[in-house]
Amino acid sequence: MSDDSVQADLLDDAQRRFPVPDYEELPADIQERLDEETDRAGFTPNVMSALAYKPSHFRAFLDFHDAFVDDTTLDREEVEMIIVAVSGRNNCLYCNVAHGALVRIYANDPHLADQLTSNHRTADVTDERMAMLEVAVKLTEEPDAVTSDDLALLLEAGYSEEEVWDIGMVAAFFNFSNRMATFADWRPNEEFYTMGR
Amino acid sequence: MSDDSVQADLLDDAQRRFPVPDYEELPADIQERLDEETDRAGFTPNVMSALAYKPSHFRAFLDFHDAFVDDTTLDREEVEMIIVAVSGRNNCLYCNVAHGALVRIYANDPHLADQLTSNHRTADVTDERMAMLEVAVKLTEEPDAVTSDDLALLLEAGYSEEEVWDIGMVAAFFNFSNRMATFADWRPNEEFYTMGR
Amino acid sequence: MSDDSVQADLLDDAQRRFPVPDYEELPADIQERLDEETDRAGFTPNVMSALAYKPSHFRAFLDFHDAFVDDTTLDREEVEMIIVAVSGRNNCLYCNVAHGALVRIYANDPHLADQLTSNHRTADVTDERMAMLEVAVKLTEEPDAVTSDDLALLLEAGYSEEEVWDIGMVAAFFNFSNRMATFADWRPNEEFYTMGR
Amino acid sequence: MSDDSVQADLLDDAQRRFPVPDYEELPADIQERLDEETDRAGFTPNVMSALAYKPSHFRAFLDFHDAFVDDTTLDREEVEMIIVAVSGRNNCLYCNVAHGALVRIYANDPHLADQLTSNHRTADVTDERMAMLEVAVKLTEEPDAVTSDDLALLLEAGYSEEEVWDIGMVAAFFNFSNRMATFADWRPNEEFYTMGR
Amino acid sequence: MSDDSVQADLLDDAQRRFPVPDYEELPADIQERLDEETDRAGFTPNVMSALAYKPSHFRAFLDFHDAFVDDTTLDREEVEMIIVAVSGRNNCLYCNVAHGALVRIYANDPHLADQLTSNHRTADVTDERMAMLEVAVKLTEEPDAVTSDDLALLLEAGYSEEEVWDIGMVAAFFNFSNRMATFADWRPNEEFYTMGR
Amino acid sequence: MSDDSVQADLLDDAQRRFPVPDYEELPADIQERLDEETDRAGFTPNVMSALAYKPSHFRAFLDFHDAFVDDTTLDREEVEMIIVAVSGRNNCLYCNVAHGALVRIYANDPHLADQLTSNHRTADVTDERMAMLEVAVKLTEEPDAVTSDDLALLLEAGYSEEEVWDIGMVAAFFNFSNRMATFADWRPNEEFYTMGR
Repeated sequence: MSDDSVQADLLDDAQRRFPVPDYEELPADIQERLDEETDRAGFTPNVMSALAYKPSHFRAFLDFHDAFVDDTTLDREEVEMIIVAVSGRNNCLYCNVAHGALVRIYANDPHLADQLTSNHRTADVTDERMAMLEVAVKLTEEPDAVTSDDLALLLEAGYSEEEVWDIGMVAAFFNFSNRMATFADWRPNEEFYTMGR
Repeated sequence: MSDDSVQADLLDDAQRRFPVPDYEELPADIQERLDEETDRAGFTPNVMSALAYKPSHFRAFLDFHDAFVDDTTLDREEVEMIIVAVSGRNNCLYCNVAHGALVRIYANDPHLADQLTSNHRTADVTDERMAMLEVAVKLTEEPDAVTSDDLALLLEAGYSEEEVWDIGMVAAFFNFSNRMATFADWRPNEEFYTMGR
Repeated sequence: MSDDSVQADLLDDAQRRFPVPDYEELPADIQERLDEETDRAGFTPNVMSALAYKPSHFRAFLDFHDAFVDDTTLDREEVEMIIVAVSGRNNCLYCNVAHGALVRIYANDPHLADQLTSNHRTADVTDERMAMLEVAVKLTEEPDAVTSDDLALLLEAGYSEEEVWDIGMVAAFFNFSNRMATFADWRPNEEFYTMGR
Repeated sequence: MSDDSVQADLLDDAQRRFPVPDYEELPADIQERLDEETDRAGFTPNVMSALAYKPSHFRAFLDFHDAFVDDTTLDREEVEMIIVAVSGRNNCLYCNVAHGALVRIYANDPHLADQLTSNHRTADVTDERMAMLEVAVKLTEEPDAVTSDDLALLLEAGYSEEEVWDIGMVAAFFNFSNRMATFADWRPNEEFYTMGR
Repeated sequence: MSDDSVQADLLDDAQRRFPVPDYEELPADIQERLDEETDRAGFTPNVMSALAYKPSHFRAFLDFHDAFVDDTTLDREEVEMIIVAVSGRNNCLYCNVAHGALVRIYANDPHLADQLTSNHRTADVTDERMAMLEVAVKLTEEPDAVTSDDLALLLEAGYSEEEVWDIGMVAAFFNFSNRMATFADWRPNEEFYTMGR
Repeated sequence: MSDDSVQADLLDDAQRRFPVPDYEELPADIQERLDEETDRAGFTPNVMSALAYKPSHFRAFLDFHDAFVDDTTLDREEVEMIIVAVSGRNNCLYCNVAHGALVRIYANDPHLADQLTSNHRTADVTDERMAMLEVAVKLTEEPDAVTSDDLALLLEAGYSEEEVWDIGMVAAFFNFSNRMATFADWRPNEEFYTMGR
């Protein structure tokens, strides 16, 4: 167990097609990260309980997550908007609900998540961000049709070169995450359904 | 520069839509990993030169890669077969060519890569591995249609529970990698086109 | 104005691509129905304000709606489940949110709507209702592939012949409603986003 | 039985997956409408015999039909052209044949129906009507991609605001009708195959 | 000019995107074949006038046609049924109308063509022929998914090995013909619209 | 047997779902053509051994082939580029590998085939040829959407009217060839995998 005052609580129902490990049997660094996230969120997000099934995958997944939210000049709400628009197209329950909560909170908008999971074209966002969402959805649905013209649109919308890279990485990465969530049947924590509404 | 005797050579043409960084300006750990891979392969794989554009992404990507090949009881040739079948469906030039080379080498079969990138159903593989490829391609093309029946087929084919997880992770991950390769226009090294033929 | 004690309030933003009419200028029967619905819901659902643009269409649309909920032995929650599963596939913001509220209320389940709009296969429903949802989604996505075998599955699941008809009608009808909602850009009332959560 | 001199004749083969009711057992208003249509057409259209299975649905369906042809400034041939282009895309036998007959008659063109069911782009129509058909087919195939730009194209083509609404409604409605026709396996009357050729 | 008593009449409108050649300027063997077909049909089928644009293509195309109808133990109506089911899926005006006429004549069924172009599943055919149509449509829509199981179904339905080959060839060939007809905008002769009705 | 000094060698594994005929039992003209091709290539291409199953089809197929390569002002490398781009989209193993070899040889470019089978948009070709490939792929994937605008693009790119016809014919024809190769499971000769690399 880590020294953190809050200890993670891994729900058995976090994923339905693979077992959820016992906290006690996890490596210390995984325990510590689970505790930190539990402290931050007030509950242990099921994606983490699910990924703890395989620590090497847990670590690499979280490293990507951290890079996406910490090592970028995109606004956090932009990152979450991309995630939810992509997850809506991939029909991913976990990501729609969990990142839907985050987009409501970071964008301070109780309706944006449902707009994005339904059809990003209905979202009340700036033209700049709509361009970002269009490219993210195109990369999801028809990746081989993405050309340098699409990247040029993002530069014209005002995104920096590195932000364009980050838009591509986040959109692409959730094509991975959405598929693994569906494959293992990750279930959203109850809390996510109502956060930020 | 790292202490390694072989030093990486990052080709300017490794990716066409973002710059390739100068080796000299990269963090030491990135340099070291690039040198190691260069030593192993005999050239610096362009995916690494491309990802070096953003070190935090480089590190997390490589950690996943290492987990996929080192922390699994799947045969390495099975991992590469999944990658190439998925990449063929996503029309990804870089992964078709680079992992095509690896599948030829690890499976010791000069024809398997072209079978897998064209249509996995034409591949000369065992029934067990064909089941694995079917699920990987279904997760790629119609992720929300994957059900517990698909996972049951893999268990029946003889894969362990953790191997089923790994099959899902590798297939899902290359839906990410394929999209980023296309987004940034990663170009295969010349060497990959002929290795193992 | 009708004699009803509650008077409808038609929001200008009920639809974005056509004007919303003034209540005062509407025919008496339209006013009366709007008032009734406003009394029942506590607010005027935007679909009604939108359809009031053309009274002949308003009347026929509401007649279908009434038949679907009053002249059937399907449970109301089943009707709403079909609607939300179909609307999720058609990426319809209005119906996802408005009928999502209704499915939460009638099924007394705060999570069911998000499961159905994301991917009906993740919904916590009985096998009988999953069969119903499968056929509704198939009729939405690949109508010409629906055969008598699909209807037989519904009979085997225990639905009566007339209930099978009703399942087909509701699923088919919302392929109409979803498209008109998107065409005219109907916007969900704020209340729908949180009802039943 | 109604007082009309012509009495409807409901064919047992009007639909194959649900029974066709006995005329004698139908409510008087349904009998009356069936008689009127029979008088007008010279035979009882099978869609009516099929819908008589459920009178509440019959009434609402016919109300929409009446609104589409009576309460619009679109030409009747335009309404039928939309229907046939949409039905062709949805692979609907009943609507292709029955409304194909109507489009031949109202447009006074023996070839237009086959052009529209095959590929609306081959139809010999004005540019204005081709714009109408393009939007109707887009709303059928990719509804969430319809934007205000598509509606603007119709206004530019000379359609009034209410006509644009009507184009959307007719196209959307036949996405319903086509699906119910396929679900219940409505069969075209023999007469429709040759009318207007 | 050939010695045939009937001389072909090449309509200028046979194709819209390439010129139709003058009969007088065509090689003698092309003239002769055109005359023969004109004599047989009572008019010059536009596909021949169109293909005469390039004699080498005309000859090879007609050789395939002749092999399909003369060198097979499939019934001629079966050959035409495959063609029309495939052409319906490919939305090909010329083939729907011209081969629709042939299917009506050879099957002696005035309704079969419209059933097949709309949705082969609605066609009134034997189970054996429905199996044939299913495989032909699958080869059209999802060729890489056709497996030896599909061919086995045809053998079980009673087709000989060579007939299975012929079914595949005809279905595959009209995926060529449909595309060229659309590319060059071949227009059906007026006569085809009504023959056999 | 023909008088040619080289005699064809028909591999039993040339196709897997139909028998490969004995050379001795084939008509003299088929033997002669097989010998010629064997002499030219250094081995008997499996497509020919497969098609020899039915001589009438062999002859017509080869006549088209000859017309495509001999009766055109397109460069041979352009013909092969169209074939490989189309075959990649249709996931055809035989054509990807066999025509991939030809595109490497005729274009004198060891990488072009893998670029074209993966995603023609990654190919290092001139703008003129990219326009050609775009139209060929569109005709493959969405034939009914090809309009006169697409043909105009080819003319603007500098192709002559007859070359535009040829581009359409070659692209369309390989939608036939790809499907028959998959249907009969034609297998590429080993030699094709490495030629021109």
